Amino acid sequence: MNLLLLEEQDFIAPERVRLSGRRLQHMLQVHQVQLGTSLRVGQVDGLMGEGRVLELSDTKAELEVCLSEPPPSKLPLTLLLAMPRPKMFRRILQHCASLGVADIVLLNSYRVEKSFWQTPFLQPEVIRENLLLGLEQARDTVLPQVRIEKRFKPFVEDRLPALLGDSLGLVAHPGNYPACPRAVERPVTLAIGPEGGWIPYEVDKLKDAGLQPVQLGERILRVETAVTALIARLS
Amino acid sequence: MNLLLLEEQDFIAPERVRLSGRRLQHMLQVHQVQLGTSLRVGQVDGLMGEGRVLELSDTKAELEVCLSEPPPSKLPLTLLLAMPRPKMFRRILQHCASLGVADIVLLNSYRVEKSFWQTPFLQPEVIRENLLLGLEQARDTVLPQVRIEKRFKPFVEDRLPALLGDSLGLVAHPGNYPACPRAVERPVTLAIGPEGGWIPYEVDKLKDAGLQPVQLGERILRVETAVTALIARLS
Repeated sequence: MNLLLLEEQDFIAPERVRLSGRRLQHMLQVHQVQLGTSLRVGQVDGLMGEGRVLELSDTKAELEVCLSEPPPSKLPLTLLLAMPRPKMFRRILQHCASLGVADIVLLNSYRVEKSFWQTPFLQPEVIRENLLLGLEQARDTVLPQVRIEKRFKPFVEDRLPALLGDSLGLVAHPGNYPACPRAVERPVTLAIGPEGGWIPYEVDKLKDAGLQPVQLGERILRVETAVTALIARLS
Repeated sequence: MNLLLLEEQDFIAPERVRLSGRRLQHMLQVHQVQLGTSLRVGQVDGLMGEGRVLELSDTKAELEVCLSEPPPSKLPLTLLLAMPRPKMFRRILQHCASLGVADIVLLNSYRVEKSFWQTPFLQPEVIRENLLLGLEQARDTVLPQVRIEKRFKPFVEDRLPALLGDSLGLVAHPGNYPACPRAVERPVTLAIGPEGGWIPYEVDKLKDAGLQPVQLGERILRVETAVTALIARLS
């Protein structure tokens, strides 16, 4: 981790935190901290700065922290993502958090296997944990919002147009469509389908809601690769 | 897999192949092929086309194949990659093959842990297997070339300048450098460091060999995410 993320409950005084568990082990084993070591720290959904180790044992560390810098800006990007295969889902959450995606909507689609919705990785604390891993990596503090929409049609018909607002709406889909634009300077709402892609009905509904189909070339990418490639291209 | 890749030894006649093992299981379980089913096929390092199932049992399938289409073009990209952590290495090989990278050089770096070079994933048949997974995904047949350079200095001093040739040489490195260019139309040689980045000596040596440092913004990405993001941005 490139940033030690602090939770509200870690604070034992306004500028002092007490840590144990995973973060303590990481500090000891990877950063090999000692008394007096300085580390980059940030408060979840808050400011970033420096922390200095004041007390240290095998079971806990106490740090004095000074938080004054804002986290990096988020990308003005809302990602509508057909619920991926669970193993890939965790990594996609980490990629999205590290790339700076602000909002993620997990959407059903005809080709999403029903079992994907049963994964324990959809539990809020597991989603949060994976997003935090991405934030720690990228040196960001602000958790992306994740919403779950298990019914495609009511979401796309009733809620997507308002969510889209003035943003540029795109749906990534292989076919005879314009190439995905690059370095877009306005907010973007981007829909990425499941393995095997959206079915034509879904592309039509997304078009009706205001999204334009775009493609990334003749190569068919795994969802995980496509998510990072599309975000990098748009941003 | 979006393309059934055929090896030379699968051919039992000029237009007939016999398959068993992983590819047969995939055909049966995922594609649920039957007698007469048509599939997209391609010959490793050769042409792509259609295959039709003529015989089928639990232990083998025979297909009549017609190969006439060229595979998609490769990106004119040589990737110099500090040897990644083994688990990530396998996925990076798959990402690179599916994105169309032509050449990969696995390079040592100060921050590459020595144990990474001991991984069984570096065995030629395991490298090949992971590249094939990426090609099957993307519908490509041409294996990227993978070279292993365990000594940084002799490679960078003696062989990199010739490898670079007329291509645009870039080294991805966080810092006060120009932003990584987009949609570059000429061949590119791109160096991507290990977790923790290149050390300053290595950046200097890569610069001496003709590579320009470029950065991707203030977010620090995992190597796996950075590889895909940089390739997507350049191509």
